[in-house]
Amino acid sequence: MHDNLFVRVREIMTKAERTRQSIIEKTAPIFNAKGFAGTSLNDMITATGLTKGSIYGNFVNKDDVALAVFDYNYGKVASHIKNQVHLQNTAIEKLLVYPQTFRNFLKLPFLQAGCPVLNTSTEADDTHPLLREKAINALGVWKKYMEKLINRGIQNNEIKEDTNANHFAAITMSLIEGAVMQAKVTGKTTVLNITMDHLETMILNLKK
Amino acid sequence: MHDNLFVRVREIMTKAERTRQSIIEKTAPIFNAKGFAGTSLNDMITATGLTKGSIYGNFVNKDDVALAVFDYNYGKVASHIKNQVHLQNTAIEKLLVYPQTFRNFLKLPFLQAGCPVLNTSTEADDTHPLLREKAINALGVWKKYMEKLINRGIQNNEIKEDTNANHFAAITMSLIEGAVMQAKVTGKTTVLNITMDHLETMILNLKK
Repeated sequence: MHDNLFVRVREIMTKAERTRQSIIEKTAPIFNAKGFAGTSLNDMITATGLTKGSIYGNFVNKDDVALAVFDYNYGKVASHIKNQVHLQNTAIEKLLVYPQTFRNFLKLPFLQAGCPVLNTSTEADDTHPLLREKAINALGVWKKYMEKLINRGIQNNEIKEDTNANHFAAITMSLIEGAVMQAKVTGKTTVLNITMDHLETMILNLKK
Repeated sequence: MHDNLFVRVREIMTKAERTRQSIIEKTAPIFNAKGFAGTSLNDMITATGLTKGSIYGNFVNKDDVALAVFDYNYGKVASHIKNQVHLQNTAIEKLLVYPQTFRNFLKLPFLQAGCPVLNTSTEADDTHPLLREKAINALGVWKKYMEKLINRGIQNNEIKEDTNANHFAAITMSLIEGAVMQAKVTGKTTVLNITMDHLETMILNLKK
């Protein structure tokens, strides 16, 4: 159904919108791997097979592509997590989607270059205000979503009522982002698995 | 005494060595803030006040400067931590240096652009094998050092003997790097303080 929706959406897009979407999709993995400063116009030309004129006919400048690409990359991770969360029944199971997803992130195509929030944050913090805003916003949305899952679990009598949803979400995000960084740079999953085991224990301990 | 040592070292450096060192010191904050790809030759010329010829008379290329700068940036953080650790008496106090240092990292000049290991890791993982090796090595040295502090605490009967030093160090590093990333990009210390409070509780719970 999800795939059908994409097909339908594509059908009703204009040619210009399709070109724009194709540029985003084809340059997304490069921006996530090489970063904003590291991605050149030549990289974009090679990835899309389009001319400079055609790329900049659809986007104002490289910034404009990068911002659209961030939304696309982040959207892929967020919708994957949400789909997995919806498949689970209890609040604890829903929270366990996070360690289960990030434990295997090196095998997930849309996370292979690392977490887009992490990559964008470390690059954009000192250099790129618009991308930085996107990353801050993504962190905020992620935190709110986790807090909601925890608070629902408290309301349903699944999760201990003295759980601080705000603190738990903040610590979870630190554990995930720090572990993903280490796994990505070393290419090894030892630290990632140790950290995700720890997070799973923390989540299971929330149970009433 | 530490400062005197630097003065003595500088006295016995040749002019070429002093120029090289000055290029490293002056470009270090820029590389940490803008990243490897984001730092241009013009940035390096502006920061050092030297000509292109003078910079590349002392370094083979931008890579060569970036590698030396990584050692310098990482060395500053590592020596700050070690100095603080040496001032403490117990293993628990020594471990608490980590949350205490990173809680205030936005106020420490050499950490203002963020953790050099974090910045370098997220940029270099897909793009720069030599910098990537440096970041992997730095993570390894950090982990070994923490493990040694924990294992000494176990031997001294300060820390519970069932503590897994390897796991504890890995989880600590994930918490720190993930929290530093969030504080750096948002410019706010809320998540950082929550995460460092959590780490302090974890460290205090190691006590026998």
